[in-house]
Amino acid sequence: MATTAFAQLDPPSRMLLGPGPSTPHPRVLAALAAPTLGHLDPQFLEYMDDIQRLLREAFRTQNALTFAVSGTGSAGMEACLVNVLERGERVLVGENGVFGGRIAEIAERLGCDVTRVHAPFGEALDLDRMRDAIRETKPKLVAVVHAETSTGVLQSIPEISEAARSVGALTLVDCVTSLGGVPVELDAWQVDLAYSGTQKCLSCPPGLAPVTFSERAVAALRARKSKVSSWYLDASLLLNYWGGERAYHHTAPINMLYALREALLVLREEGFDAAFARHRACHESLMAGLMAMGLGSPVAPRDRMPQLNAISIPAGADDLAVRKALLRDYGIEIGGGLGALKGRIWRVGLMGHGASRSNVSAFLSALEEVLVRAGVAVERGRAAHAAASVWPYDK
Amino acid sequence: MATTAFAQLDPPSRMLLGPGPSTPHPRVLAALAAPTLGHLDPQFLEYMDDIQRLLREAFRTQNALTFAVSGTGSAGMEACLVNVLERGERVLVGENGVFGGRIAEIAERLGCDVTRVHAPFGEALDLDRMRDAIRETKPKLVAVVHAETSTGVLQSIPEISEAARSVGALTLVDCVTSLGGVPVELDAWQVDLAYSGTQKCLSCPPGLAPVTFSERAVAALRARKSKVSSWYLDASLLLNYWGGERAYHHTAPINMLYALREALLVLREEGFDAAFARHRACHESLMAGLMAMGLGSPVAPRDRMPQLNAISIPAGADDLAVRKALLRDYGIEIGGGLGALKGRIWRVGLMGHGASRSNVSAFLSALEEVLVRAGVAVERGRAAHAAASVWPYDK
Repeated sequence: MATTAFAQLDPPSRMLLGPGPSTPHPRVLAALAAPTLGHLDPQFLEYMDDIQRLLREAFRTQNALTFAVSGTGSAGMEACLVNVLERGERVLVGENGVFGGRIAEIAERLGCDVTRVHAPFGEALDLDRMRDAIRETKPKLVAVVHAETSTGVLQSIPEISEAARSVGALTLVDCVTSLGGVPVELDAWQVDLAYSGTQKCLSCPPGLAPVTFSERAVAALRARKSKVSSWYLDASLLLNYWGGERAYHHTAPINMLYALREALLVLREEGFDAAFARHRACHESLMAGLMAMGLGSPVAPRDRMPQLNAISIPAGADDLAVRKALLRDYGIEIGGGLGALKGRIWRVGLMGHGASRSNVSAFLSALEEVLVRAGVAVERGRAAHAAASVWPYDK
Repeated sequence: MATTAFAQLDPPSRMLLGPGPSTPHPRVLAALAAPTLGHLDPQFLEYMDDIQRLLREAFRTQNALTFAVSGTGSAGMEACLVNVLERGERVLVGENGVFGGRIAEIAERLGCDVTRVHAPFGEALDLDRMRDAIRETKPKLVAVVHAETSTGVLQSIPEISEAARSVGALTLVDCVTSLGGVPVELDAWQVDLAYSGTQKCLSCPPGLAPVTFSERAVAALRARKSKVSSWYLDASLLLNYWGGERAYHHTAPINMLYALREALLVLREEGFDAAFARHRACHESLMAGLMAMGLGSPVAPRDRMPQLNAISIPAGADDLAVRKALLRDYGIEIGGGLGALKGRIWRVGLMGHGASRSNVSAFLSALEEVLVRAGVAVERGRAAHAAASVWPYDK
């Protein structure tokens, strides 16, 4: 019986401008609380079909094997790797941030022979170095991160997938932070495997990982000599549930799947191009405001993604103290740096439903106040006007 | 842009009396839709602490390493196995249903030398045979299922864990369907590893797997020679997030964790003993009604669990047609048999919030009507009275 008191659940409303989760769309939160159905209920199976079709639209692919892994984005990463890789096989990973490093780490745990092509955190991968390494190592799989959440760098994909295909390799792309925020064109780019997460530009809470496997990837899965080491993530078993047979594998996370379906509908109703333009406008507005304040980003303009913005921490500012003040006094969450960029950058996410002009404006204002209060030298009173001046929809 | 129509999300209200998911408690669904926090937000970290404390109460353990895996029950199963087992190690699995078989399958995929002690589906494991096999094989791990969801059989645990400990083996217990429905006493039973799911007797949607590791299990994890093959499920990394350091591992499924916390609070407020008594009363009432109708269970009375009831399909009844009629005409979901019991039993879950007198009554009435309509020979008009006559709270 109760001997310790537990507070009633009452999470404060935050403006989630970190690297994810982003603030879910209200329709998505409402969908989460809809009545739970059984995982073999005919109505639920229809929703699963919808989710597969909507994910194909979002990923811009015809891949039959497109579904949501019952885990967060990193489970999607592991699901892609564990299904197509076997012990001793060669993998080439482009590593210019934490998530490229994670791909390499997982492939190594699977007993693969992993080659890493490094670029400094905050820079895109060098395409010539990637091409050379692909030709030299002739790997089974080439893996890169489309939108590196740890640095804010957007990576061009087609050059890499083309080089991979020229040596018969599969291409795997991490789309966790890109899907819904910037164009993702898996079929046009000839990408074989991709995974994403629900908690970034899809405006949905964390908990699911959309994944997709091309026919070439499915062929690699079918040609395996050994069983997939993970039963939970074995796509050949999941295929029997998400495909035509509806064979029970594990109990699907019903309510999270409602939320993902609703999130994809919200995105579709806005229109993908409109959503990309909104993310772009918020980013440009944010950067104009930051520059007017005297702040900048360590990422070169051509490598920046709109949905996750790296800001160089200015001289005299205490990383953690500023973030704590933003959260405590303004309810605004932003992220710190990871790995090599820890203590050097802040990460500001303008993702999905959170990519709004009002959020940009509120953040710039709060940041200026916090920095001024802490005695950090910034240009005062200019950010708001600068941010507004580049907002495209007023023109 | 939209070229295909998608219906508005509007799942019908079902009475979920299958093997899970059960119908979530309304407070749990409301918690799911609470505002999303960041996974490092101080308020969210407090909720995580609460969840760990509440899970320790539910599992009746002092284990420090007690948390929720970001996946469904089968991810919890895989998490326990993958963390303590290494290639070539010996594992003994008691297999008297689908889920024991799944444990063995996962251990085999990890490269372990697996011995299975079989009992027929619908019977408990023979304790003497288990003891003999443990002494003979001297495995690193002995694994059994406490409440076999595929058969409705409840397994006695202490004799098995005692035998395991006598040869230095760890004991792993599947508590997916038992936790919250019948007494679970991990520390008293000297169980080293256990996992559960949210979607059975905890009255929460599917999506998380509570797990707990004893000090002996943690010692086995620390003594590993090889890295855990799954990065996502590596408890030594997860420990850094759920433990004191709060190091980022993966983005936790925030809203599902709200729901689990609320579900554990609901259970705690009712009281564990009261919840167990309610499950027991519903089970006895159901069985009295079924017997009055002329139906029975293939499971011996002493082996039955209250929360998942196997019913022998009567002669002349069409398994699938009956289940479809229950769903279509009454909105009641029950389960079919799995594996060796497919087509031979129905599985009726009375779990968590779904274990109510009104659900028992509604199900008995609907089943009788469906069977009579299908021309199956059953005793008419007796079930409701029989079910009511054993209801303990009226006496």
